[in-house]
Amino acid sequence: MTNLNRRDFLKAAGVAAAAGVVSGCAQSKADPLQTVPERQGKSVIGLIAPKMDVVRVGFIGVGQRGYGHVKRMSHIDGAEIVALCDTHDEVLQRSANYLAERGMKAPALYQGSEFAYRDMLARDDIDIVIISTPWRWHAPMAVDTMESGKHAFVEVPLALTVEEMWQLVDTAERTQKNCMMMENVNYGRDELMVLNMVRQGLFGELLHGEAAYIHELRWQMKELEHKTGSWRTEWHTKRNGNLYPTHGLGPVSQYMNINRGDRFDYLTSMSSPALGRAAYAAREFAPDHQRNQWQYVAGDMNTTLVKTLKGRSIMIQHDTTTPRPYSRHNLIQGTNGVFAGFPNRIALEQGGTKSFHEWDENMNAWYAKYDHPLWLKMGAEAERNGGHGGMDFLMFWRMIYCLRNGEPLDQDVYDGAAWSVISPLSALSVANRSESVTIPDFTRGAWESAKPLGIVGA
Amino acid sequence: MTNLNRRDFLKAAGVAAAAGVVSGCAQSKADPLQTVPERQGKSVIGLIAPKMDVVRVGFIGVGQRGYGHVKRMSHIDGAEIVALCDTHDEVLQRSANYLAERGMKAPALYQGSEFAYRDMLARDDIDIVIISTPWRWHAPMAVDTMESGKHAFVEVPLALTVEEMWQLVDTAERTQKNCMMMENVNYGRDELMVLNMVRQGLFGELLHGEAAYIHELRWQMKELEHKTGSWRTEWHTKRNGNLYPTHGLGPVSQYMNINRGDRFDYLTSMSSPALGRAAYAAREFAPDHQRNQWQYVAGDMNTTLVKTLKGRSIMIQHDTTTPRPYSRHNLIQGTNGVFAGFPNRIALEQGGTKSFHEWDENMNAWYAKYDHPLWLKMGAEAERNGGHGGMDFLMFWRMIYCLRNGEPLDQDVYDGAAWSVISPLSALSVANRSESVTIPDFTRGAWESAKPLGIVGA
Repeated sequence: MTNLNRRDFLKAAGVAAAAGVVSGCAQSKADPLQTVPERQGKSVIGLIAPKMDVVRVGFIGVGQRGYGHVKRMSHIDGAEIVALCDTHDEVLQRSANYLAERGMKAPALYQGSEFAYRDMLARDDIDIVIISTPWRWHAPMAVDTMESGKHAFVEVPLALTVEEMWQLVDTAERTQKNCMMMENVNYGRDELMVLNMVRQGLFGELLHGEAAYIHELRWQMKELEHKTGSWRTEWHTKRNGNLYPTHGLGPVSQYMNINRGDRFDYLTSMSSPALGRAAYAAREFAPDHQRNQWQYVAGDMNTTLVKTLKGRSIMIQHDTTTPRPYSRHNLIQGTNGVFAGFPNRIALEQGGTKSFHEWDENMNAWYAKYDHPLWLKMGAEAERNGGHGGMDFLMFWRMIYCLRNGEPLDQDVYDGAAWSVISPLSALSVANRSESVTIPDFTRGAWESAKPLGIVGA
Repeated sequence: MTNLNRRDFLKAAGVAAAAGVVSGCAQSKADPLQTVPERQGKSVIGLIAPKMDVVRVGFIGVGQRGYGHVKRMSHIDGAEIVALCDTHDEVLQRSANYLAERGMKAPALYQGSEFAYRDMLARDDIDIVIISTPWRWHAPMAVDTMESGKHAFVEVPLALTVEEMWQLVDTAERTQKNCMMMENVNYGRDELMVLNMVRQGLFGELLHGEAAYIHELRWQMKELEHKTGSWRTEWHTKRNGNLYPTHGLGPVSQYMNINRGDRFDYLTSMSSPALGRAAYAAREFAPDHQRNQWQYVAGDMNTTLVKTLKGRSIMIQHDTTTPRPYSRHNLIQGTNGVFAGFPNRIALEQGGTKSFHEWDENMNAWYAKYDHPLWLKMGAEAERNGGHGGMDFLMFWRMIYCLRNGEPLDQDVYDGAAWSVISPLSALSVANRSESVTIPDFTRGAWESAKPLGIVGA
């Protein structure tokens, strides 16, 4: 395990997180170009961990997100919850009580300091660790997890800076451990259906995709001591870019076989003014309140354009501030037509039920024809167990299934890194008059021959 | 009148058009930064031409677009159609016959060569000229029109290169003549309503807008000898960018007071692959047909991001190739919410009829409250006279009204230039890895003090 004392650790993490700094020599003012670090291990594309009979699970963070993870994991056959860790006693007890009420074996509990999780990692009876903590802890905890011989499953975003992405990739390659960002949206019924449609060539040659995280979250600013807003709000004072790119981008990236035949090449990004959070703070808090002292720099609406090596374009948006309806866009466009979400609609030249001049919003017929095999098999059970309509349960079901059956996971460290690095790189572009910024190839060339994701779970 | 012989003229126009070349020294590889040419006259912001009792109109081009213009103009009080010009005899006769059938005075007819229009311009009994010809003729004809002492009204786009934009601006300033690009969409009921809403502060502080021209037009490739496709298709072989930016951008620009308190600063642009036109040609034409010999370079979907000096962002898309429903986006977003078109929908924090988490698509209530005074006054008559739902008639009604009543036109040469220059500059960015490109300030600083467009036509 890395030998940092606490103060150094926090300081390094804080600086890296706060600055969104990118290391390496810049070829141009904005292009980090990157010194690609020396490889430390072997590619983990298609990594298959030795089959596990029972998957023994530890959790770091059982708060707003982690509690749901505990509940859902307790319903997965073949998963055993061994230990829980959280800095917040009340929240730790909540999960322990839930398991007790379900009559399950009591997990070991770790608490009392921000580094108590390292005591949990010292155990040798844990196979995988689910990390659901504030963003700045994701990379350090994932590194520590892999160094301790366990597979890391990390909430989104995987990490916050280019350096952190390389650190996770290199640690995974050196330790030959899984490091999967838990992009649950890839397991939504609609996203799986669209993946199935793309695989069957419904849209012709792919051209363009659109992704977004448009989700008004100003109310989280009222969470001051605990819960998500207590740590997430501050990011709006540190980084002006797409703070949270993966929920919409994950599915679109799989539609396009990113890191499996194609890869991200470069991006350009532009933000609107940052006004909404300050306005909300002025409205909801006393003038001398901390929320009114902060400088909110994150533009309310950020728009980023990503180019892939095969030439496709992806338009990605982020807005957690403006009062407007939720959307992840979920658009894929090819020469034969378009699917878009929010609301779901499709237009095709060949194979549609109506003229492509009009959106077809009747999804029932399309579900009947193109529901993904994984959804057909597990969809009902997923919906029963809930979690964003079932996608959270389905994701865990797949994770445990793959680990028990000796299959590669559906998402790997290269996916998590590519989808997450949009955050720091969009900020870099925004800070430099939307100059184009190269996106690192975390696979170091392996993307070209990596096989496309099969029909997941068929 | 400029003294070019025909061959030189066409050659120059063709080269400029084909290359989309931008003159001036580039500060960076892609940024034309531009030598701003020496000013030749006086600003025409707010130009008021001496009141005309009757507006005497000449037409250059009475084909697909121009014929509708002739018909609509013949229904405007105070407008007199004096002369028509076209290189296509059949089409010229069609307009002449229409006017005859309406019992109107026969216009003089000009035909027989591509420069016959200059004979029409030699007349001294014409006040304004409506130019509806292939794109490459827009700038030369508008220059000649102003040089001949007449006001020019030009179909979209105003011109094709940065040099042509400056040429039109400088000619207008030197001759003190109107040079208005006829962006009809600004006169649509929905666009006028949204302008009215913006002026009343419904959306709070403006942040972001979205515009598009998504309109499947591959079928125009079948127009080989005459009609739009016979000259418009070729642009897909010459320029990879947003070929036609103004229909969606015009309204959004007016919402944001572009050139009247704010202005465009820079843009970045990205295209998808160019596949759809070649696929269509392969499907619809014999292998040895000319349509199958061309290299279609224009990416099927182009996405451009524009930043204004006040910091707002505008996302502009262009796609005339993919089979998908029509859209101009028509989105305006502020701190209080969003309006979007296609389909019309609105979400507001204050002043909405429902929670902003849900789109309100019931426009009747919003029309009742916010229909623009111009629409209230002239909307019914506009719809009766038609032309894209009435916007075409309303535009002409306003043009003639302003000229007869000594009011500035609603759109000036700086508007037309700013909205149209997105085309060559997007191509420049696309050709340079989406590098950001400065957008010239055609007003030479006057944008800062120019008054916002009033409630048009109140």
